Amino acid sequence: MSRTAVIAGVGPGLGESIAERFAEEGCSVALLARSESYLNSLADRLRDQTPGNATAIPTDLTDSDDIEAAFERTRERFGAVDILVNHASAASWDGLLEQDPEDFRQALAVGPESALHCSQEAVPDMVEGDGGTVIFTGATTSVRGREGAVGFSAAKFACRGLAESMARELGPEGVHVAHVVIDGGILPPGSDPDDSEEYLDPDAIADNYWYLVEQDRSAWTLELDLRPHVEEF
Amino acid sequence: MSRTAVIAGVGPGLGESIAERFAEEGCSVALLARSESYLNSLADRLRDQTPGNATAIPTDLTDSDDIEAAFERTRERFGAVDILVNHASAASWDGLLEQDPEDFRQALAVGPESALHCSQEAVPDMVEGDGGTVIFTGATTSVRGREGAVGFSAAKFACRGLAESMARELGPEGVHVAHVVIDGGILPPGSDPDDSEEYLDPDAIADNYWYLVEQDRSAWTLELDLRPHVEEF
Amino acid sequence: MSRTAVIAGVGPGLGESIAERFAEEGCSVALLARSESYLNSLADRLRDQTPGNATAIPTDLTDSDDIEAAFERTRERFGAVDILVNHASAASWDGLLEQDPEDFRQALAVGPESALHCSQEAVPDMVEGDGGTVIFTGATTSVRGREGAVGFSAAKFACRGLAESMARELGPEGVHVAHVVIDGGILPPGSDPDDSEEYLDPDAIADNYWYLVEQDRSAWTLELDLRPHVEEF
Amino acid sequence: MSRTAVIAGVGPGLGESIAERFAEEGCSVALLARSESYLNSLADRLRDQTPGNATAIPTDLTDSDDIEAAFERTRERFGAVDILVNHASAASWDGLLEQDPEDFRQALAVGPESALHCSQEAVPDMVEGDGGTVIFTGATTSVRGREGAVGFSAAKFACRGLAESMARELGPEGVHVAHVVIDGGILPPGSDPDDSEEYLDPDAIADNYWYLVEQDRSAWTLELDLRPHVEEF
Repeated sequence: MSRTAVIAGVGPGLGESIAERFAEEGCSVALLARSESYLNSLADRLRDQTPGNATAIPTDLTDSDDIEAAFERTRERFGAVDILVNHASAASWDGLLEQDPEDFRQALAVGPESALHCSQEAVPDMVEGDGGTVIFTGATTSVRGREGAVGFSAAKFACRGLAESMARELGPEGVHVAHVVIDGGILPPGSDPDDSEEYLDPDAIADNYWYLVEQDRSAWTLELDLRPHVEEF
Repeated sequence: MSRTAVIAGVGPGLGESIAERFAEEGCSVALLARSESYLNSLADRLRDQTPGNATAIPTDLTDSDDIEAAFERTRERFGAVDILVNHASAASWDGLLEQDPEDFRQALAVGPESALHCSQEAVPDMVEGDGGTVIFTGATTSVRGREGAVGFSAAKFACRGLAESMARELGPEGVHVAHVVIDGGILPPGSDPDDSEEYLDPDAIADNYWYLVEQDRSAWTLELDLRPHVEEF
Repeated sequence: MSRTAVIAGVGPGLGESIAERFAEEGCSVALLARSESYLNSLADRLRDQTPGNATAIPTDLTDSDDIEAAFERTRERFGAVDILVNHASAASWDGLLEQDPEDFRQALAVGPESALHCSQEAVPDMVEGDGGTVIFTGATTSVRGREGAVGFSAAKFACRGLAESMARELGPEGVHVAHVVIDGGILPPGSDPDDSEEYLDPDAIADNYWYLVEQDRSAWTLELDLRPHVEEF
Repeated sequence: MSRTAVIAGVGPGLGESIAERFAEEGCSVALLARSESYLNSLADRLRDQTPGNATAIPTDLTDSDDIEAAFERTRERFGAVDILVNHASAASWDGLLEQDPEDFRQALAVGPESALHCSQEAVPDMVEGDGGTVIFTGATTSVRGREGAVGFSAAKFACRGLAESMARELGPEGVHVAHVVIDGGILPPGSDPDDSEEYLDPDAIADNYWYLVEQDRSAWTLELDLRPHVEEF
């Protein structure tokens, strides 16, 4: 039977590549984000071009009621959730002295709080079923606080702490929690990977996400770092 | 002239030891926390027993207006702020599946958000003056997500990310941002340190906080780990 | 054309699983270790049971002349080297006060020094060719010094430092250097994985080594941690 | 009674500042390094200008017999050892492809092996006495493998692994093992600290070494990072 995957915070670029990769593997993919028109066109394309299924579920990921409803619709449509990707992240690129506290608040709401809400919806399905996978999209800033980005730093660190805590709690329950550290710039949509070796190809990143889903439970990875071969780091 | 220190989240145990140590060094210490009666008795004691000064400022650290008012009162009383200790932390000790989302929200409000608000109040004084010091109280969980404590893990990681980001931004401005990882249990108030070598003595921890304040700016520490000599780690 | 892989320090358990996995992918595998009879029987088995090729090259990995000769034989037999696994490790499990300095010396010779010698033989082939992969087998102790094992701690840390340095130097040259942190006990040969979920299955670990070989160069992993789903960590 | 401190690998710059600082605190300092004339002039100066004592012990730190003899002389002169600073480090600044294996070997001999030998001489005195302190001088490269410096990376990582292992073994025995990460350039001898804020002042670093010696055993630091306030990191 087809596995059900929820991509929370899908958008052009990496989120879309992940959704596509999972649909290519036959998953039924629930696409959660704000923009209804974008989600509809992506869902149409995935249904047309992949062996999997897809559905657009416009969702405000800072609203826990909205998240609850989105998972309800996912279950009605595709059954219990097997895979969750916590992909949402608010750009919050200010130093301490310029930071609008409301933007800082928002970065925490879009990051760790939405990840908590989505995980609380998805994980019981996994624990009651045959296990599952929760993947967090992290960044260089998840492991190294970035100058001039207090909100982004706090939110990315918080998601990593949440992921580590969940991994320890849920591994014995058969749920694989993994945190991916993307250490470099992601190729902008429309660019040619062959001309741009200084970027990570989002399709290559998505291969790694699927790899984490498929890892044997006797050898699970908690944290996967990824960077272009030419990256200085 | 006496330096002004704000201890945000003071309470019996480590917070009190820090306040006392700083007052012993002659600082004027502003004590911020909820409990008016506790703060008053501590402020009285510090004024009586140390060469420094102290004032009780009852504050709800999850309320940014309250924080703004507290710093206003601090400045009126003692002048510009030289030292800030971000010491507040909400106990949030539940696993993912039991976590009340409101408690998770609260852990972020008491941790990284209150630290942001206090830092935004204190740091401009330091930058305009002769520099200063901001110390964050961290824990084992700041660097290793703890099973069964998703809220505490997210909040402590977030504070560490905030501290690292601030350190990189503010070091060149003469502001020393440091994060202390307390890796072990702190001796409960009323216990005898000589009988309890498995605990950290809060007075010994406080010595380290003062040491960070006094470090020469040519050799500043970002992260200081502390644990009892018998700790398994 | 078949890729040439050198497994330095192969033996029953994980080393053997890696050799087998690479031969199953069609690699020509050079098996380097001390025991001639073991290597011969493994090479025979791989030639019989896999689509790849294999050759036994008895080698003292603490002797740089021996290493040089082993790579010479590998190249004569299979052509330029594409993949190197630095898998050798000396058990050195004493605390400071009991440590025989000669065993400490030996742990460094078997660990970082043999890895240096093998890498210096293999990497020029990769740089002059189409790139390649160097994988280091690490352990929990690679990232956390272990009480009562000063030699093992020093040697595993040294290999990780060598791997990180090489990764930064050689990534732009098309050589993927990766360090695998095996965080748990590996299933002893002859045990049944289904009865022993507290162990890592060496075949599952070997899948991950092959995955690192196949990673797209736009998204390379430096450090891969692996542990059983029930591991406390 | 005066404490006995051994500085292994003393030289102009940081090693000399540490020796001077410890002598100022009244320690009897044994100076171990190759150059007899340098050590004699430093010992003379410390005896003249500080309340402590000092003795020059020309030593080849890659020769364990020489190390044993040096500690013998130290004990005859000053009594049992209380403090050891493992400060020796071989510059080995080549990439993999240029690295002379003999230089790599030498980097391990000067780094982790000499630290092992010195620690094996010093620690029994501490365990049998009232405890003591062992400090390792580390660098940025101790925690981040450096491109183009495979030998230095392997040696500094190895020392850190050794230090962590020793800390866990010896803390309960009353011996404080600490590892200092010096993250930046150290002011060259003869420069004026006030003109050179991009460097660490060796006297300021030495203050931190003494601080580690004096830390209360209920709150010991394993790893202390130090950098100039303007450092980008």
